[in-house]
Amino acid sequence: MATTGAHTIKAFDEDLDRLRALISQMGGLAEHAIRESMRCLVQRDLEGAQKIVDNDKKLDALEIETERRAVQLIALRAPMAGDLRDVVAAMKISSVVERIGDYAKNIAKRVPLLDSVGKIEPLSLMPEMARIATEMVHDVLNAFVERDAEAAVRVVERDRAVDDFYNSIFRALLTFMMENPNNIGQSTHLLFIAKNIERVGDHATNIAEMVYYAATGQHMADRPRGTDPLEA
Amino acid sequence: MATTGAHTIKAFDEDLDRLRALISQMGGLAEHAIRESMRCLVQRDLEGAQKIVDNDKKLDALEIETERRAVQLIALRAPMAGDLRDVVAAMKISSVVERIGDYAKNIAKRVPLLDSVGKIEPLSLMPEMARIATEMVHDVLNAFVERDAEAAVRVVERDRAVDDFYNSIFRALLTFMMENPNNIGQSTHLLFIAKNIERVGDHATNIAEMVYYAATGQHMADRPRGTDPLEA
Repeated sequence: MATTGAHTIKAFDEDLDRLRALISQMGGLAEHAIRESMRCLVQRDLEGAQKIVDNDKKLDALEIETERRAVQLIALRAPMAGDLRDVVAAMKISSVVERIGDYAKNIAKRVPLLDSVGKIEPLSLMPEMARIATEMVHDVLNAFVERDAEAAVRVVERDRAVDDFYNSIFRALLTFMMENPNNIGQSTHLLFIAKNIERVGDHATNIAEMVYYAATGQHMADRPRGTDPLEA
Repeated sequence: MATTGAHTIKAFDEDLDRLRALISQMGGLAEHAIRESMRCLVQRDLEGAQKIVDNDKKLDALEIETERRAVQLIALRAPMAGDLRDVVAAMKISSVVERIGDYAKNIAKRVPLLDSVGKIEPLSLMPEMARIATEMVHDVLNAFVERDAEAAVRVVERDRAVDDFYNSIFRALLTFMMENPNNIGQSTHLLFIAKNIERVGDHATNIAEMVYYAATGQHMADRPRGTDPLEA
């Protein structure tokens, strides 16, 4: 945008701010959905779980809106370098946040499939794991809005904790299943739920890499990694 | 593009063809990776599994290349209506195909974690399930290249078969775990593998919806759905 006038630059910045605001709005909804999914899981709140499923449509609509605006912005203003990286990052981040919402929805869909699960020990680790993962999402989206590459790096470092939680829960659930085969059905649901939360941490890490690249034009090199449990 | 000259239209079409060719190339790699992951799983081919993991980098690079070209195309030519839908679809589809490659990679990473699994009955269903899912991927990417909305609809209809396979495998694995707690560790890996394949079918369905929208400007309404297992 270097050769265009101040008027155009201002219009571009306003458009970009609007994109950033959309991402923040999506992030708020996704974080809330994950937190709520944990509350509904622990408290066996079937109605709350259904609400999470219903509300996911809002995230889908906001993703479409973000994509529409980003594409329009590229076509109308042909931004260059850092500006273009920002717009593309916004588009990609919105799609990742939408997927984080899908994880919350998946967890919520499993709530009615679980019997009373109050006594499953691994379950007590899950909300804390989810708390760290959603905090990562929160902080990495802030880093995007602030164009703060260093804050993005700090988010990545926390994925190790989420992975550690996942591995603990995985082992605990395996033991739990072995102790009593009647627990197997329940435990597989909890296994998938733990995997969903672990994926939220991975997605926060993916976003961090996008934020870093958008802010610096460089790829986040040799980022610190945890125990690297299998994805998906 | 209606008001621009023939020269520009031709250049745009060439660029778009290049994007489509990239998508086809990515699709070929992803299909091969899924098929290979099944072969390595069944034949206990650890070297082959490692090769799948290594080769995934190619898909990552092609996704970046597709995105770069698509963004450039939007910025340089400011395409409208159907042309713009095609370019945006190419960008989104490449990201989904990259994720399909990630599923193959995840399956491959589990191969060394499994003991000799020749006798696990649910395992014999898995390659057939994967065959249907990769065929869906193959056909939906052809549908994109041909802009064939009806072919995209036919792909969606086949997701039901993949879901049915997943449900059978899930139940079989649960039974298998209950029969002998020593099977639990192995079976959880197979459970995640089955879930990964089920997700490949879901992603083919997502691509089908993108193809349909790109080709028609309409959303695929009330598409037939199967048993809708949880996404995870």
